[in-house]
Amino acid sequence: MVKYVYDFSEGDKEMRDLLGGKGANLAEMTKLGLPVPPGFTISTDACREYLRLGDVPQDLVPEVTKHLRNVEDVIGRKLGDPKNPLLVSVRSGAKFSMPGMMDTVLNIGLNDESVLGLAEVADNERFAWDSYRRLIQMFGDTVLGIDGALFGDALDHMKEDRGVTFDHELTPEDLKELVDQFKKIVKDATGDDFPQDPREQLDLGIEAVFKSWNTERAKIYRRRERISDDLGTAVNVQTMVFGNMGEDSGTGVCFTRDPSTGHSGVYGDILMNAQGEDVVAGIRNTEPLVQLGEHDKKSYEELLAIMEKLETHYRDLCDIEFTIERGKLWMLQTRVGKRTAAAAFRVATQLVDEKLITIDEALTRVTGEQLTQLMFPQFDASAEKKLLTRAMAASPGAAVGELVFNNEDAEAAAADGRKCILIRRETNPDDLPGMVAAEGVLTARGGKTSHAAVVARGMGKTCVVGADDLKVDAVAKTVECGDVTLKAGDIVAIDGSTGEVFIGDVPVTDSAVTTYLTEGLEAGIEAAGDDEMLADLIKSVDRLLTHADEVRRLRVRTNSDTPEDATRALEFGAEGIGLCRTEHMFLGDRRPLIERVILSEINSDDREEALHSLEELQRTDFENLLRAMDGKPVTVRLIDPPLHEFLPDLTKLEVKVAVAQAKGEKVSEDELKMLDAVRRMHETNPMLGTRGVRLGILLPGLFSLQIRALVQASLKLKKEGLDPKAEIMVPLVGSVREMALIRHEAEDIIKAETEVAGVEQDFLIGCMVELPRAALTADELAQEADFFSFGTNDLTQTTWGFSRDDVEGTIFPTYIQESVFGVSPFETIDQDGVGKMVQEGVKRGLSTKENLKLGICGEHGGDPDSIHFFHRVGLDYVSCSPFRVPVARLEAGRIAILDK
Amino acid sequence: MVKYVYDFSEGDKEMRDLLGGKGANLAEMTKLGLPVPPGFTISTDACREYLRLGDVPQDLVPEVTKHLRNVEDVIGRKLGDPKNPLLVSVRSGAKFSMPGMMDTVLNIGLNDESVLGLAEVADNERFAWDSYRRLIQMFGDTVLGIDGALFGDALDHMKEDRGVTFDHELTPEDLKELVDQFKKIVKDATGDDFPQDPREQLDLGIEAVFKSWNTERAKIYRRRERISDDLGTAVNVQTMVFGNMGEDSGTGVCFTRDPSTGHSGVYGDILMNAQGEDVVAGIRNTEPLVQLGEHDKKSYEELLAIMEKLETHYRDLCDIEFTIERGKLWMLQTRVGKRTAAAAFRVATQLVDEKLITIDEALTRVTGEQLTQLMFPQFDASAEKKLLTRAMAASPGAAVGELVFNNEDAEAAAADGRKCILIRRETNPDDLPGMVAAEGVLTARGGKTSHAAVVARGMGKTCVVGADDLKVDAVAKTVECGDVTLKAGDIVAIDGSTGEVFIGDVPVTDSAVTTYLTEGLEAGIEAAGDDEMLADLIKSVDRLLTHADEVRRLRVRTNSDTPEDATRALEFGAEGIGLCRTEHMFLGDRRPLIERVILSEINSDDREEALHSLEELQRTDFENLLRAMDGKPVTVRLIDPPLHEFLPDLTKLEVKVAVAQAKGEKVSEDELKMLDAVRRMHETNPMLGTRGVRLGILLPGLFSLQIRALVQASLKLKKEGLDPKAEIMVPLVGSVREMALIRHEAEDIIKAETEVAGVEQDFLIGCMVELPRAALTADELAQEADFFSFGTNDLTQTTWGFSRDDVEGTIFPTYIQESVFGVSPFETIDQDGVGKMVQEGVKRGLSTKENLKLGICGEHGGDPDSIHFFHRVGLDYVSCSPFRVPVARLEAGRIAILDK
Repeated sequence: MVKYVYDFSEGDKEMRDLLGGKGANLAEMTKLGLPVPPGFTISTDACREYLRLGDVPQDLVPEVTKHLRNVEDVIGRKLGDPKNPLLVSVRSGAKFSMPGMMDTVLNIGLNDESVLGLAEVADNERFAWDSYRRLIQMFGDTVLGIDGALFGDALDHMKEDRGVTFDHELTPEDLKELVDQFKKIVKDATGDDFPQDPREQLDLGIEAVFKSWNTERAKIYRRRERISDDLGTAVNVQTMVFGNMGEDSGTGVCFTRDPSTGHSGVYGDILMNAQGEDVVAGIRNTEPLVQLGEHDKKSYEELLAIMEKLETHYRDLCDIEFTIERGKLWMLQTRVGKRTAAAAFRVATQLVDEKLITIDEALTRVTGEQLTQLMFPQFDASAEKKLLTRAMAASPGAAVGELVFNNEDAEAAAADGRKCILIRRETNPDDLPGMVAAEGVLTARGGKTSHAAVVARGMGKTCVVGADDLKVDAVAKTVECGDVTLKAGDIVAIDGSTGEVFIGDVPVTDSAVTTYLTEGLEAGIEAAGDDEMLADLIKSVDRLLTHADEVRRLRVRTNSDTPEDATRALEFGAEGIGLCRTEHMFLGDRRPLIERVILSEINSDDREEALHSLEELQRTDFENLLRAMDGKPVTVRLIDPPLHEFLPDLTKLEVKVAVAQAKGEKVSEDELKMLDAVRRMHETNPMLGTRGVRLGILLPGLFSLQIRALVQASLKLKKEGLDPKAEIMVPLVGSVREMALIRHEAEDIIKAETEVAGVEQDFLIGCMVELPRAALTADELAQEADFFSFGTNDLTQTTWGFSRDDVEGTIFPTYIQESVFGVSPFETIDQDGVGKMVQEGVKRGLSTKENLKLGICGEHGGDPDSIHFFHRVGLDYVSCSPFRVPVARLEAGRIAILDK
Repeated sequence: MVKYVYDFSEGDKEMRDLLGGKGANLAEMTKLGLPVPPGFTISTDACREYLRLGDVPQDLVPEVTKHLRNVEDVIGRKLGDPKNPLLVSVRSGAKFSMPGMMDTVLNIGLNDESVLGLAEVADNERFAWDSYRRLIQMFGDTVLGIDGALFGDALDHMKEDRGVTFDHELTPEDLKELVDQFKKIVKDATGDDFPQDPREQLDLGIEAVFKSWNTERAKIYRRRERISDDLGTAVNVQTMVFGNMGEDSGTGVCFTRDPSTGHSGVYGDILMNAQGEDVVAGIRNTEPLVQLGEHDKKSYEELLAIMEKLETHYRDLCDIEFTIERGKLWMLQTRVGKRTAAAAFRVATQLVDEKLITIDEALTRVTGEQLTQLMFPQFDASAEKKLLTRAMAASPGAAVGELVFNNEDAEAAAADGRKCILIRRETNPDDLPGMVAAEGVLTARGGKTSHAAVVARGMGKTCVVGADDLKVDAVAKTVECGDVTLKAGDIVAIDGSTGEVFIGDVPVTDSAVTTYLTEGLEAGIEAAGDDEMLADLIKSVDRLLTHADEVRRLRVRTNSDTPEDATRALEFGAEGIGLCRTEHMFLGDRRPLIERVILSEINSDDREEALHSLEELQRTDFENLLRAMDGKPVTVRLIDPPLHEFLPDLTKLEVKVAVAQAKGEKVSEDELKMLDAVRRMHETNPMLGTRGVRLGILLPGLFSLQIRALVQASLKLKKEGLDPKAEIMVPLVGSVREMALIRHEAEDIIKAETEVAGVEQDFLIGCMVELPRAALTADELAQEADFFSFGTNDLTQTTWGFSRDDVEGTIFPTYIQESVFGVSPFETIDQDGVGKMVQEGVKRGLSTKENLKLGICGEHGGDPDSIHFFHRVGLDYVSCSPFRVPVARLEAGRIAILDK
């Protein structure tokens, strides 16, 4: 027979799968000998069996009876005893926290008789009837499924009728009357009386928890958080203790260190003569934890000792809930506490210094996401701010600008160089142009997976969503918030890390952590000024990042096209360039040259002249880049986009010419020639058209130009005594023959140029693996490639059949809503699909060439989960944007330790 | 020690790998006791070793010596004997025929002395000196690498000087002088004398054959024909025999049956007192084979006996070369003969009747490609035709129309309903519009892999290329051919199966084979009229196709959207519809409805009304289709293309509105609204945008409409007592969650509608597997899918990253030229890339669901090689266009036998 019920003394914190998080931690505290109100946990096995059967498993009821007897024996009270009743709570507790998703019922055991006994024992009639009232209300709502508003309304009417404001101002007589009203609500709604049998209350409560696992709300939450539907929840049945039994009672929440700053020393809030729910309801102001010493020295000292014990035991910052009932301290819950990014770094290194954990473990306690948060510019903490509202932080950063209500105004502001914040009730794909133009986005509706949130995160745009106290009138271009009305053009500031919205300008300061990352420890500490906690934080970051650099296997390169970007990335710790996009070198004042190349006849003098000029310019570009990165590898990708991207847009040009002709104006020969070329080169799906290696094969001179420029630049530096390490990368390869053709071309150039220069120099020649076919034939490709660089952006596009430009703002929000994926596959690599392609490419590549160099240069190179994946599949390096380099270093270190 | 040299008596026809095709067949004939001039074959092993070493393997020389001695002993003459010299030929012979790619040297063994002996023995001075002249010329060109034109020019000068037209008009004295001149050419070009040592001639000849394996020309040919570079060639050294030794000598080519019609009975040409090369040079007209009976009855009868022996032995039509030297018959070569499509079918069934082969084997002797050729309309054989020229047949069919020289004229003709033939010197991507508009394409340049050829085959357009006697003047719009000049508008006819170009109209007749295929055997024979061979052909096709239907495992369905198409496909033998594209049902007069759906507000009355009308129309569509296919499965694909494809083109609309505005004309509200919608819905890469299942999820009403219409139509027929078998197919699925959402929607509709209708009916619900991610997660998809249909068109697009519209006319000709692939991956499935994805999908799908139905509905469903692949990977059916159904039936039968 399966064991379904575990006394708190039978479990420990490792049993989360079976007992849920709450149950496992209650068991752990019980095991440590801490004062936990006795109780037991019904396992997730029982829940799963319930869900399978659609009914309570037969064996469960006698087991509950047995464990209930134990509790009664320990406590010396019996459930339903009219004189001195045992009261219990029934709470859900799944493996992963699902706050507010499932049901809780308190005060089970009260009925028309035992309420009198409780009043007697507690010597508090009001308390007893209030407890009974709460039981009926909670039970009615969560177990019997009665509309909770019915109870709330009755309570409100009672208070109105009695002319009081707060619940606790009602008299015992009022509460008795309320109990009668509540019982009538139950009778009216269900046809049955409120169950007077305490055991029936308990059994129904347990079943209600089981059922609550599969409410639509819980299912949606789990899909969103990627929690399996098969886990089931445990049920905790625990003796009730009361913090509201008088001035010698109380309740509180505390942390073993400050979860906000990471400052060491205890931290918390208490409320005497109150219950946990009163703290939540904010009836009275809480007092700092230290005040407990004044109220109840014995309990305070006992609590401090327990906190120390728990922290040493859990070896981490603990979050603790407790209650004092008539001078007796009871521990209700503990868990490893959530904390801010700054606290995470500081606490981790503190614990190392206190020898509770190793530096390896400390590194696993912080994340790249936390480091990113510390790197964003922030609103000046010392500045005066006028808070308008606080909503959901959807995409980090600090943005200030004038309010705009639509695309046109956003684009007009951007065109004028004025910063703006786009405000919408909610966004949809039509708002994309405005989102692009604005500094930040603010919406009145939607959550973290709403369109605005998903798109803004994708763009790296500051975003606050779900500010539901804002009334947005897009026609009048005004927004009301309480008694404040703002109009278009008013300045607002939004904090994408806190969700705060401020009225007026707020100065933004650079992050001292970023100063440290780019200029070193001393500069960082200097930037922290007299903020000691910040200086300490910087030291913590330094210790952990330095350790990450020591332990990581993955090298970290950067995607940079200019010496300026490259220098910036070097400051952030980049160890090379993994992707230099050469097409950017054809833009700006060079555009006329590339236009001439495209438009003139093959082999014409004009074309050759333009090609020659481009080659010289590229040589200088490469020379500067290689000089900046001296001694470090620089992977240069040959030109990738279709050539028509260098020409004007077809539609605009057609309109321009047609309008001029309609007006009888003369259209120049050049313009007509251009129109002709643009029409001829137009593509239906340019992403899958004549680009990358296809261009190189169709127009042999084009890649040669770039290769020659790179080889010449490299040889020049070599002669100067520098150590250039240029690598030639061929984009969009799908077949080994393509690679062989270009490799052949490149080798001829290298041979010719090194002979001319008279110096020896090796060049690696490799390719992007960004098409499924490249991954599927990687064993062949490796015969002609010295390295692979996985282009996970394009690989995601082709594996999923997604055009990023077209789907990210239109389909993705719905897809995230409908749980097709939890996060955009362009943000975090889709391991089940795109990841399999990467693994296939790695496996096949290495099967041909053991020392094949393997890297990745998609945007996933800067994403923590993706970095872990790339470590696991055995890549040698990731390449990411300069700003993500520190994140990549940290995460590469973390995964090296996590994977040990 | 490896054996490098094989006497002809040591091998047989199975040893093609080692001895090459020619060597193996010479050995086989020797084994059969036929009169083969003695000789030996140097194996491909030796060639491979030569290529590895870069030099002749040491062991080879003594082995050649040994085998040469054998030959000398048998013949009784010695190489280089000044009195009675043995002469030998050195010929290449690879496993696969590479006509004209590698070297041949004849008459080895002649020098300044032995030429006199030969003249003596042959009693023919002219013959001896001409043989010597030919040796120096061939040896100089192919072994010593001297420009062949030098010899040709010297010969021409001599003839001019002597005032004669033909080589054989030169006197022995002339030829002696020519030999001196040729020797001087050799000396001047190489610095050395022409080698007088016959053994040196032989060894250098052998090495030249080895070397010729790796000429650029041979390498390109092999890449194009997909022949491995690693095979190497064998070398055949054989005693020379001469058909030009007088009137009792001669040479000829013969076939054991007519390779053109398949008529039984021998067939061939002879030329008395001549050598093989004289036949090629066309110096005199050949005589029919039967004339040999007049010239040399003994040899003729011996030859007939040998032909019968060879055919019985090879159990197939044989192609034979022979020479008679002074009344003695010598067999020089045999192989299984090439034949026309008609001959292939007829010979195959004749051989069955003659009990030489089984009907199974007969089926493997014909191909779907041959059947296709028989199905094309043809020029009326009895009509008078005026041949202009004959060039390369690049894409089959018979096309007639007026000559046009550019896109504009082609499009204008098409717009007027006039048929036209586009003529160009060569085509490039700019000519695509003209190719689309024309009936056929004719070019003066380029081969079977030229742009015109590749693109026309892709379009299924009749095409003749490389008509290099045409002088095309696109500006004057004239074409000259000899003394004929044609101008734009003149009527021409081109035959894409023969490469013939005719002046003037030629009547086109339907194929009687097609009549048979659609209307049955009797109708076919009737259509053949008094053409007995055609009637016999139709019976042969019927026997083999019937057998294919009996043995094949693959079912053959069709891609049809209308009852008319479906009926046509049924006539061709389709066993169901594998792909009904429903978007076609939104076109034509229904376009305004779908426009209303797209343009009106969600949930508006107007939108609902339009949706309702569409649903009714679709219900009728489905009802008609299911009725036509009663009892057979009909797979209906839900709407796939992005909705903006139903709206006007963005560029055209922008131009229209801008021009109207520029002219100060009023633009209607509707037009502005449309422009707004088109702008909003415009996509950068529509192929990877909001289409397929993505549409279904974004706009829940859309798929419901189609599903409900299909289910209702099906239930209605069911009630009528019919047996509709509708299958619902979801396009562009990439994740199981997408499939689950639509499946859920469909199941709800099926449940509701069957309840209303009160009849039971099952509907299979499956998905396209057309994205790499679908294949990679097929095990998950199979949980929600009853069948998979591989969409190999889109799967090719995404696996390769190719937009078919953009690459097929632009990149592919170059890619085929550069051997990136031998044939467009949209024509024949790319087994190494896309094929792996299909295999992955099959494996994963079946791992979840053993009885998962597996089909394919890309255009590859009608391609022979692809059909073989789909059989091998275990699909249940292919679906192809109606016209390809017979091909698919035949090929499915063939592979079932080939794979036994």
